[in-house]
Amino acid sequence: MTNKLYDTSLSLLTDLYQVTMAYGYWQSETAEKEAVFNLYFRKNPFGGGFTIACGLANVIGYINHFGFSKKDLRYLRTLTGNDGRPLFEEAFIEYLAQLKLTCTIDAMPEGTVVFPNEPLIRVRGPILQCQLLETPLLNLINFESLIATKAARLRLVAETDTLLEFGLRRAQGVDGGMTASRAAYIGGCDATSNVLAGKLYDIPVRGTHAHSWVMSFDDEKQAFDTYANVLPNNVTLLVDTYDTLQGVRHAIETGNRLKEQGHKLAGIRLDSGDLAYLSIEARKLLDEAGFQDTAIVASNDLDETIIGSLKQQGARIDIWGVGTKLVTAYDQPALGGVYKLAALRNEKGTWDYKMKLSEQAIKISTPGIQQVRRFQNERGFISDMIYDQEMDGLDRHSADKPSVMIDPLDFTKRRRFEAGQPHEDLLVTVFEDGKQVYKNPDIHSVRTRVQKQLANLHPGVKRFVNPHLYPVGLEKNLNDLKTELILKLRGE
Amino acid sequence: MTNKLYDTSLSLLTDLYQVTMAYGYWQSETAEKEAVFNLYFRKNPFGGGFTIACGLANVIGYINHFGFSKKDLRYLRTLTGNDGRPLFEEAFIEYLAQLKLTCTIDAMPEGTVVFPNEPLIRVRGPILQCQLLETPLLNLINFESLIATKAARLRLVAETDTLLEFGLRRAQGVDGGMTASRAAYIGGCDATSNVLAGKLYDIPVRGTHAHSWVMSFDDEKQAFDTYANVLPNNVTLLVDTYDTLQGVRHAIETGNRLKEQGHKLAGIRLDSGDLAYLSIEARKLLDEAGFQDTAIVASNDLDETIIGSLKQQGARIDIWGVGTKLVTAYDQPALGGVYKLAALRNEKGTWDYKMKLSEQAIKISTPGIQQVRRFQNERGFISDMIYDQEMDGLDRHSADKPSVMIDPLDFTKRRRFEAGQPHEDLLVTVFEDGKQVYKNPDIHSVRTRVQKQLANLHPGVKRFVNPHLYPVGLEKNLNDLKTELILKLRGE
Repeated sequence: MTNKLYDTSLSLLTDLYQVTMAYGYWQSETAEKEAVFNLYFRKNPFGGGFTIACGLANVIGYINHFGFSKKDLRYLRTLTGNDGRPLFEEAFIEYLAQLKLTCTIDAMPEGTVVFPNEPLIRVRGPILQCQLLETPLLNLINFESLIATKAARLRLVAETDTLLEFGLRRAQGVDGGMTASRAAYIGGCDATSNVLAGKLYDIPVRGTHAHSWVMSFDDEKQAFDTYANVLPNNVTLLVDTYDTLQGVRHAIETGNRLKEQGHKLAGIRLDSGDLAYLSIEARKLLDEAGFQDTAIVASNDLDETIIGSLKQQGARIDIWGVGTKLVTAYDQPALGGVYKLAALRNEKGTWDYKMKLSEQAIKISTPGIQQVRRFQNERGFISDMIYDQEMDGLDRHSADKPSVMIDPLDFTKRRRFEAGQPHEDLLVTVFEDGKQVYKNPDIHSVRTRVQKQLANLHPGVKRFVNPHLYPVGLEKNLNDLKTELILKLRGE
Repeated sequence: MTNKLYDTSLSLLTDLYQVTMAYGYWQSETAEKEAVFNLYFRKNPFGGGFTIACGLANVIGYINHFGFSKKDLRYLRTLTGNDGRPLFEEAFIEYLAQLKLTCTIDAMPEGTVVFPNEPLIRVRGPILQCQLLETPLLNLINFESLIATKAARLRLVAETDTLLEFGLRRAQGVDGGMTASRAAYIGGCDATSNVLAGKLYDIPVRGTHAHSWVMSFDDEKQAFDTYANVLPNNVTLLVDTYDTLQGVRHAIETGNRLKEQGHKLAGIRLDSGDLAYLSIEARKLLDEAGFQDTAIVASNDLDETIIGSLKQQGARIDIWGVGTKLVTAYDQPALGGVYKLAALRNEKGTWDYKMKLSEQAIKISTPGIQQVRRFQNERGFISDMIYDQEMDGLDRHSADKPSVMIDPLDFTKRRRFEAGQPHEDLLVTVFEDGKQVYKNPDIHSVRTRVQKQLANLHPGVKRFVNPHLYPVGLEKNLNDLKTELILKLRGE
């Protein structure tokens, strides 16, 4: 469950302003006020129509290991303000020393298809604690969700071809590489080249040899034969070190020797040049020589656009190796998730609803103790309605009552759902008062969930160019509350 | 020196093909053959004219902690080939169990300005060991060099303004965030919001409060006053939660109270809207109220282009907070460094020079035991010459002999350097036969080195649009050798 790279205390893995605000809440005796924060994003990445929620397993590990170490506290004591005096008084440091998280955290299970403005995580608890979690939660969820989404897009275009993730060398640091390998597998890759990810996350690993292997021998033929002698059950030969089609002919010679020994030439790999042309020519050479079962692997800065184009050109590629463009989410390297205060318990014990205004409607947050209800019919998901779980009593949204959903950017767009319309509430409780009550499924189940979820989406939503907008709206009472609050905050 | 996040064995943080090749070398009894590999990149990032070398400190930590753990080996034993049999025989696993690195590693000191095709790291030693290091070295150097370069560009445009790195929430995982904070500081940022980076790397940390602080109070005024009461020596007020200029007026009221108490309003922060207009208006309000010393901080998806544009529009911003665009290197999220075999010791004890061919001249690697000589005059750096340290004897390139440098993409471009021309050889020995012989300077010295190095570059090289190409060439004998080898490999 925990990410084994996190052996050190990571409780200071946060922005300083979270700690200064925590100090502010503590000093003004509001630290224990019950707050609700939502973590969500405003736009699907890559110009696409959906996003895959990922990163919860690492969040669970983070929360379970939360706690300031003596070294952390010693460091906080050294921080000073612009007058050279300490930022924090000693009693606050002592407060942090004994701090235990007591938040209740609801989240979308990993592998869920999600859309803009839906809470992926909802944190409820003392405002001081909620605040300290903002930065690490964003760090962990933003990146893994981004990469899982990228991988899901690659899976869509690769169809049933094998998809390998090769990105470690271009990933953003050690952990960038580790979490990218995990999220890529969840999103739809079949295996990774990253051995440590294989070991820690139980992801299948794949790999054979590089150009340097070929270069280290006097000629290509000798390099191929030696490799095949040593690892006869793992022979995919990289054929483009010198001359690609000559390389394919050398691979075939080695393949013939392997056959005689009862082994097989599993594949050849192309890593440069015109992959459409070369794969077609290589396929011909292989087929003519009786190697119909030998796979053609391609790599070299591939992404979903290039793979789609190669397929359209009739490239004969069976296995796609994707690296840089996947693990860095090259065309949009950040998801842009945010974490906003949505409600605060007042002294009367009821909720004060909270939101951040903005001149841009898309940047206005939604108040409330939000849950996401996904309606479906026999063909799949039909729309998601964000509602307040506590408004007008907990029972309001039980399935036996009709609901009305409104598009918050266009109030004339409404949709009514009758009682009994099949649906699922997406947020599940992961921590209750700081105690873990949810066990994250194993990585293979999460990966399967992604494909099942995507199968329930209309093909138009999965299209890369101008995807159909999946309908997400606010339940009518929540929309009314939000409108009222905007008008009030604007003094109207 | 070591990155304290790496408490677990990271020796499997590599691509599987490095391990299968290692097995191949071991089986074919070539594992101990002495090889030379160069780590370099082919193009400066961001369309710029220079790159900053960074990441060596983490490489040193990695090498010093290298060694397969029992769990690593247990995992390797589980890997199987396409016939279900183990990939590796037990004797190889035992070989790995006792493996100690004995490589000699030369590297550019962190903070050095580097250019395409120059080795940032040169690894020399048993080919099996060199190969195992490829992926982690690329992972560690690629990303930190990329971010340090981005930060250096931001520093160029920010001139003497304060530059803060705020990117943790959008960074690529925990370690992505940690290494980004480190590299950003080295490249020229003044401080980070990342508290753990402050603690582990001795980087100044900065931060005050977020929108949620303001939203958690009944009104903005109360939020500002409470914050100022609690942290009077660290007051930078975020003024755009509701209405920005109204927020500035509220901040001034709080500032007046702070003044009375002998404290000061250090700054206000703008995080949305038209930063040019708002900063000019806010400056007027602050100045009129006697707050000439109060700084205006701006944030909101800033990068070097937007900062340059805001400055051109006369924005009155003193402190720039940069996050997403910096820590993900948004417009080019990978450096694309490679690691190529350049020479292999043959049975006669002399070097066989090695290179990878390609139809694209830019992708052809350079053979040789490369060193980079940087020539300079009283105005700064004038050009870099890559030469082979061992060709024609070690003394050849002592300063008392003239050299000729050739542009490998245009042989008609030549440059002669007379004996006595001031120069520096950039690669320094970091590990000798596996033992560390170089102590990485502290982070502040590395940061200073960046600015000193940049001061030695012609302004045209530092320009963002169509920068002047800093001259990098091959020493004539090395260029001749390379040409000969290309012709031979192409069978001409």
